Amino acid sequence: MLAITVISPVAFASEGEGVHNYATTFLFIAIILMMAKLSSLIERVGQPAVLGELLIGVILGNMVLLGINFFEPIKENPIIIFLAELGVVILLFQIGLESNIQKMKAVGFRAFLVASVGVIAPFILGTYLVGPWLMPGLNFSAYLFIGATLTATSVGITARVFRDLNKLQTREAQIVLGAAVIDDVLGLIILAVVSAIVTVGSVGIGLITLITAKAILFLVGSIIIGQIAAPRLGKLFAKINTGTGMKFTLAISFGLIFAFLAQKIGLAPIIGAFAAGLVLDPVHFRYFKDANIVKDLKENVKNSDEVTRKKILGILEPHADRHIEDLIEPLGLFLVPIFFVVTGMGVSLSTLANLPVLLVALGITVAAFIGKIVSGLVAGKVNKAVVGFGMIPRGEVGLIFAMTGKSLNVISDQVFSAIVIMVIITTLLTPPILTYLLKRKKMD
Amino acid sequence: MLAITVISPVAFASEGEGVHNYATTFLFIAIILMMAKLSSLIERVGQPAVLGELLIGVILGNMVLLGINFFEPIKENPIIIFLAELGVVILLFQIGLESNIQKMKAVGFRAFLVASVGVIAPFILGTYLVGPWLMPGLNFSAYLFIGATLTATSVGITARVFRDLNKLQTREAQIVLGAAVIDDVLGLIILAVVSAIVTVGSVGIGLITLITAKAILFLVGSIIIGQIAAPRLGKLFAKINTGTGMKFTLAISFGLIFAFLAQKIGLAPIIGAFAAGLVLDPVHFRYFKDANIVKDLKENVKNSDEVTRKKILGILEPHADRHIEDLIEPLGLFLVPIFFVVTGMGVSLSTLANLPVLLVALGITVAAFIGKIVSGLVAGKVNKAVVGFGMIPRGEVGLIFAMTGKSLNVISDQVFSAIVIMVIITTLLTPPILTYLLKRKKMD
Repeated sequence: MLAITVISPVAFASEGEGVHNYATTFLFIAIILMMAKLSSLIERVGQPAVLGELLIGVILGNMVLLGINFFEPIKENPIIIFLAELGVVILLFQIGLESNIQKMKAVGFRAFLVASVGVIAPFILGTYLVGPWLMPGLNFSAYLFIGATLTATSVGITARVFRDLNKLQTREAQIVLGAAVIDDVLGLIILAVVSAIVTVGSVGIGLITLITAKAILFLVGSIIIGQIAAPRLGKLFAKINTGTGMKFTLAISFGLIFAFLAQKIGLAPIIGAFAAGLVLDPVHFRYFKDANIVKDLKENVKNSDEVTRKKILGILEPHADRHIEDLIEPLGLFLVPIFFVVTGMGVSLSTLANLPVLLVALGITVAAFIGKIVSGLVAGKVNKAVVGFGMIPRGEVGLIFAMTGKSLNVISDQVFSAIVIMVIITTLLTPPILTYLLKRKKMD
Repeated sequence: MLAITVISPVAFASEGEGVHNYATTFLFIAIILMMAKLSSLIERVGQPAVLGELLIGVILGNMVLLGINFFEPIKENPIIIFLAELGVVILLFQIGLESNIQKMKAVGFRAFLVASVGVIAPFILGTYLVGPWLMPGLNFSAYLFIGATLTATSVGITARVFRDLNKLQTREAQIVLGAAVIDDVLGLIILAVVSAIVTVGSVGIGLITLITAKAILFLVGSIIIGQIAAPRLGKLFAKINTGTGMKFTLAISFGLIFAFLAQKIGLAPIIGAFAAGLVLDPVHFRYFKDANIVKDLKENVKNSDEVTRKKILGILEPHADRHIEDLIEPLGLFLVPIFFVVTGMGVSLSTLANLPVLLVALGITVAAFIGKIVSGLVAGKVNKAVVGFGMIPRGEVGLIFAMTGKSLNVISDQVFSAIVIMVIITTLLTPPILTYLLKRKKMD
């Protein structure tokens, strides 16, 4: 008797399970992508495309309220959920590529201040004010967790808004990006501390030091090692093949490996991807040329006179070195909208119908807003409102905290729902507010 | 009590399951991509990259024989299996885009002849000769299924070889592509007929007609409707947004929807993707321009004299209309190697160690080779060997037949293993043979 060999990924999932049928997943992806593009009509009224994607997601995700169940399976399709996650990883990688490490360093101190205030303020507001005030009589641990969920910024949405409005290179954008990285690290520490307090009753300084050291070591270490390794890897792989494919593969692998490392250490994978993008520099890919463009070029100028030929080649040859950003872009076009549409689909409008929960949620949301808006005040000579509101979106990290609280039996279902509503409101309100602030263009 | 809202695809799989951890999947994808590129060293000895990808897959997939288990989870990672399937769909879509529907029509009759002979010859060889001869005493149904598994060409590998060697535009390549589409349809009919014979004992002419009609209707219908719809959709969506993103999204959605439709009708999704690529024509996207390239251009020629400026713009403006192929390419660079590496990983070398099974497998393989080589003889005035050997690879469709036979209790585990070995051998031998034939360049 022989073991059955699995030969084709197309034909088998695992032995005996039979033939794959991805037809529906293909269809869902096509629908998400086309709906996302349709929603870019929102740009006509001056709003960023990301808001359109979120809103079309909200619509698709709540069609069930009108009795239309067709889109429901998307929410639980594990492949689409993965593609969404890969999408936000690619987005932050792209944003890292477009960011400049020198510029980031220049705003480093301000970013640290903004991150610290933006973590401490909402934590205090949540733990000592909004928690005890709106939900009296709960255990102190519950208030601690509510405070903790308010700390970490979800930078994906803000980054998309800056990008959609072509403002990624502003000092405000750099501060928000830097602060989001730092507050993810701070959030990691807070989660560990709060969890230790709840489970053990106290927390040792040793544990805090260890977690902090690990996180800082990862960020600083990966940037230093990356800067050393990237040019060498580029040179090494260029010996095998100098084509566009090699350049693309090296870059994307770098991003994925950093995302892997970040997650392994307990940070969000998007932080790793952002760091990878920051480390990679066009100069690491100077050995790679796009063979097709070079061929096209040579062919096209063959019949020109000497002077014109030189001029044309002078203008065009830099283009032959296709920017790594251009190569990653189609992957982003494919994956990034999936993240935002699926995020929008997660907004269950029926949650908003429970009045007591909604009131608690609004209280938490106000704390979430105020806590981050004040962080903008320490951003220095920039548009403080842009920085403050840019820090407002909460997402996966806050929900991870809330889930941890639930699993420790500290957070009830009602409080959890209120936190989810807070995430929804910060997610949907930030794009229009930020757009308004950025278009107003007043520096205060 | 409230239902828990799932807000972020990052944070939740389904309620209660907790936080996703895709770290390992990210790492595996990076490893597959980098290994695939490393394996392109095989191009140095004149072999196509696809052979390198298959071989590196075989190596990774059999490291377990050396006691290294690290790569084993890749084989069963459902996300990587999906990405592989999406990869071959994208590959056939790309190949459809690069193919010309007029050229395909020009070889239509020859493709039909090649497909018919290439289905009938191996079917007869398998059912009446190799089956009864190597495995005497089995039920006739078993021989029927063995014959059926030998019919359908798996065009992905041959297409990659043609592409790697820059031969996609040759008449031979067009015939093989056309014949592969047709023999998938014929295979569909054969599977239905054989299954009916096994289960009901006979088959009605009505069923055959129905299946044939459905398949032909899909292919012809999709091409006609596609040709009508594509320019209109292009014009419609260009009204929303004429950027690169819209162009990319329209094209990729078209490909995915066709893959969905094909699978719904019982054809391989790659056939649908190929048809979509064939239908789409650059002219459907003439409304879309790459805003960045246009801006770059205008900026660059500002200071040139009138004559030079006109010349440069004359050469460059077509480039501003970024080819849809260029936009899809990075997606292919990301996904296609995953398909071939994972396919290679499915080759279990330990299967080859069972002598009786191996002998049966070799017999079936000889039938698989001869049956398709003779189909090349009716290919007309082209390199007949290239067409014949180009038709040899068997893959998912053959395995689907074998699986169906197994589920009907007609195919034993041993016969199934022998069929798997046949698929392995045709998969691994075709690239070097085809490369040799194409480089010899003799037309016979």
